[in-house]
Amino acid sequence: MAKKQKTFRPKARLPKGLRDQFGINVRAEQALLARVRALFESYGFDPLETSAFEYADALGKFLPDADRPNEGVFSFQDEDKQWLSLRYDLTAPLARYVAQNYDGLVKPLRRYQAGPVWRNEKPGPGRFREFVQFDADTVGSPLMAADAEMVMLLADTMEAIGLPRGDYIVRVNNRKVLNGVLERIGVLYGDDPDVEIKRLTVLRAIDKLDRLGPDGVRLLLGKGRKDESGDFTKGAGLSDEQIETVMAFTDAGGGRNGDVIARLEALVGDSAMGREGITELQEIADLLMAAGYGEDRAAIDPSVVRGLGYYTGPVFEVELTFEITNDDGQLMRFGSVASGGRYDGLVERFKGIEVPATGCSLGVSRLLAALEAKGLALVDQVSAPVVVLVLDKTRVGASQSMVRDLRAAGIRAELYLGGSGMKAQIKYADKRASPIAVIEGEDEVAKGEVTLKDLILGAQLSSSIKDNKEWREDQPAQVSVKRGDLVAEVKKMLARYDGSSL
Amino acid sequence: MAKKQKTFRPKARLPKGLRDQFGINVRAEQALLARVRALFESYGFDPLETSAFEYADALGKFLPDADRPNEGVFSFQDEDKQWLSLRYDLTAPLARYVAQNYDGLVKPLRRYQAGPVWRNEKPGPGRFREFVQFDADTVGSPLMAADAEMVMLLADTMEAIGLPRGDYIVRVNNRKVLNGVLERIGVLYGDDPDVEIKRLTVLRAIDKLDRLGPDGVRLLLGKGRKDESGDFTKGAGLSDEQIETVMAFTDAGGGRNGDVIARLEALVGDSAMGREGITELQEIADLLMAAGYGEDRAAIDPSVVRGLGYYTGPVFEVELTFEITNDDGQLMRFGSVASGGRYDGLVERFKGIEVPATGCSLGVSRLLAALEAKGLALVDQVSAPVVVLVLDKTRVGASQSMVRDLRAAGIRAELYLGGSGMKAQIKYADKRASPIAVIEGEDEVAKGEVTLKDLILGAQLSSSIKDNKEWREDQPAQVSVKRGDLVAEVKKMLARYDGSSL
Repeated sequence: MAKKQKTFRPKARLPKGLRDQFGINVRAEQALLARVRALFESYGFDPLETSAFEYADALGKFLPDADRPNEGVFSFQDEDKQWLSLRYDLTAPLARYVAQNYDGLVKPLRRYQAGPVWRNEKPGPGRFREFVQFDADTVGSPLMAADAEMVMLLADTMEAIGLPRGDYIVRVNNRKVLNGVLERIGVLYGDDPDVEIKRLTVLRAIDKLDRLGPDGVRLLLGKGRKDESGDFTKGAGLSDEQIETVMAFTDAGGGRNGDVIARLEALVGDSAMGREGITELQEIADLLMAAGYGEDRAAIDPSVVRGLGYYTGPVFEVELTFEITNDDGQLMRFGSVASGGRYDGLVERFKGIEVPATGCSLGVSRLLAALEAKGLALVDQVSAPVVVLVLDKTRVGASQSMVRDLRAAGIRAELYLGGSGMKAQIKYADKRASPIAVIEGEDEVAKGEVTLKDLILGAQLSSSIKDNKEWREDQPAQVSVKRGDLVAEVKKMLARYDGSSL
Repeated sequence: MAKKQKTFRPKARLPKGLRDQFGINVRAEQALLARVRALFESYGFDPLETSAFEYADALGKFLPDADRPNEGVFSFQDEDKQWLSLRYDLTAPLARYVAQNYDGLVKPLRRYQAGPVWRNEKPGPGRFREFVQFDADTVGSPLMAADAEMVMLLADTMEAIGLPRGDYIVRVNNRKVLNGVLERIGVLYGDDPDVEIKRLTVLRAIDKLDRLGPDGVRLLLGKGRKDESGDFTKGAGLSDEQIETVMAFTDAGGGRNGDVIARLEALVGDSAMGREGITELQEIADLLMAAGYGEDRAAIDPSVVRGLGYYTGPVFEVELTFEITNDDGQLMRFGSVASGGRYDGLVERFKGIEVPATGCSLGVSRLLAALEAKGLALVDQVSAPVVVLVLDKTRVGASQSMVRDLRAAGIRAELYLGGSGMKAQIKYADKRASPIAVIEGEDEVAKGEVTLKDLILGAQLSSSIKDNKEWREDQPAQVSVKRGDLVAEVKKMLARYDGSSL
């Protein structure tokens, strides 16, 4: 019919760092998102949805003097030659939304958003170029109560998705305390244009403490570090004495929150910025204590700094504390699955006025992997469908009406739609993990009956009954009933399995 | 602290054809997706998620001899210079998924997928460049029962999302019937490389019947048509006689499905292809009748052809039949909100073997707009939050603990996190549409009490009580209770409104 082009056969494949998810994995994600959504709603956050891509400059992906977006994002040009970028997080679109609609917003704005983000980075094991984030942010609140609430929300989220207390910890710190320490050792001073870069290098070095250990971080704080592959990362260029002060700061955690704060207070000395950070940490610690969140759930921890440059005060992250055995038999941890902090400058980019804001972000794919590894994956209660076989193609309508009756009774059901015979149809039902196959063969039609094959019982029995003849003659896992009793009988059979094994 | 760059202030704006959705609009979409998902699951479809972008050629967006993707999609190059495109529908990714995983799939594969798609087209009123589709497809089934099931699924979907019977109709046709008619009038014959283009032009002309009327379609079937803006669209170049045959075909609908089929049978005459189409239509009509779907829900209608080239047999679309009054006071219809059909060749592109498939796609944004216009929008039952005010900043912890107690009792609640005084806080609660504001002023603290302000009752009374003095003295909409009775009293007050007005 259609004229054939010269045969051009594209290869069916996905670009690296992308993936398909099917069936139970999608349901596990849906179930997790539903739980998180319900919790965020109960906190008074309202949902926002923004588009997948925006103007690159509105997402902050333009340096003042660059004519194409900086790296790390997927970008393309619109008809009018303006650059568009796929969002790389949900915070930049929020800042744009707030700036664009500022006057009409109820402030403080409490919003949540869930959705995929895209990073144009090198993918690796468990590292994808598309992944789902779930964020909550409060925009327009300068109060530490807003930050403390984020910490509580993160702790509550972990328990809402099924993690037992003790399997997670929310670690809390404050950028101003670190800045106070840096101020004391002279890193923050001076008109040197490299000071900001140096500060970011220090942040990123500390952020790698988990992965590289103290010695690796010392190298990154000093001259630099050569990794296993031989690549050299330039360091922050601190002196040995400066390095030891920074290391003492990262090492000041442990014990009661009050004790940690006292240690930090000593380290910042008379730095005004550092003391401001201490006051903020104290406020958060007091609020957490008043609300009943102990150090087993939310602990002040100076080793948490987060790598992002835009945080201005409190920062926090959720670490999963349990170990799992990976496929190679090695013990491993999942580490950070969520994080956040205060970013008072992000809306200022657009408007020139400071709009205080704080928020948090869950890495949904990582959380799913962690729950899966712990055997705690949530799944929507969806049973495998009852399959109605089609043995006589002239009676498809009759089979269809059985499917309809089952569905009307709330039973997930489907008609076999392939072109094969009885044996292949049973095999299909087995592969679908169907609990029951409904069969209406010639004999059944004559008697006005249908046969119900209990595939779960069948599978159990087939491993115990070895005698083929006995099996064929007794057919212990099937029963014939009048067509009118179909729904009642299927319900009875399903009730045996209580939904749990379906 | 951070060194300021030369001030670069991007404008906070969205590219044309994109939009933000907030609060109730997002919840309405979530509620609709949940209903559709539950229905599709009950039909035995399983969820698939694919990535937002893929190789352009895998999505079919490469002509054999082109070196960049054809128009209509957003495309960009990966590091290795290969072209990637944002998906423009959910069918092309499914075809790629099936081809890539063919041997391991349980066939027929029944999958559903929901998510945004992107079109690089000119946006217009109600026409966006990002919108959400919800698809179901059965891959690997040659049976008309699979197509009939799609028609039933579409009808059931409309009712599941709250549209009354009579407000929608699923219109069903078959491409082979039209091809039979075209064969009879000579349009399908010959080695002319333009035949396929001509066939598509005919399809697209008929697809515009709703919008342009019969005379407009006649022009497009003939020499061509100049639109209001003066743009000329080249026609299919049929003769007057050919045009009248095609028009008679589109006009053959109305009445019982059996009568329509009889009329069509006469039109295709002895075309083998046409007769195959008639047989398929008859099978679908029989299955619909056997399952209890009458012509009021699913009607054979030859004017439905759909514009896409890849359909090979049955095609169908859902039309909303009610009229609404738009903002300009004009009566208007929503027209088509869902569509689908059989596409036996889509996987063949990759594998060289024909894989029969049929499916349908809902335009979620359009459906939402239609439900909204009818006053039928679904919304998740999420009440506006109770707001706990903060009048004394040294007592934030005490206010926070009230919020915690309310949330623990399942009541949506939040702490006021702005920096303003009493009046602004009440105004905030009003803007949030909060049912209750919780106030713990100096007097209350002394007495161990809290004051609950019923903001719904308050709003009602404030319109009836005109006397300011009476209002201030009686404070009829507020009550003070012991702190320990907070949760019980809030529950009592909320019960008055039964959730419905929240």
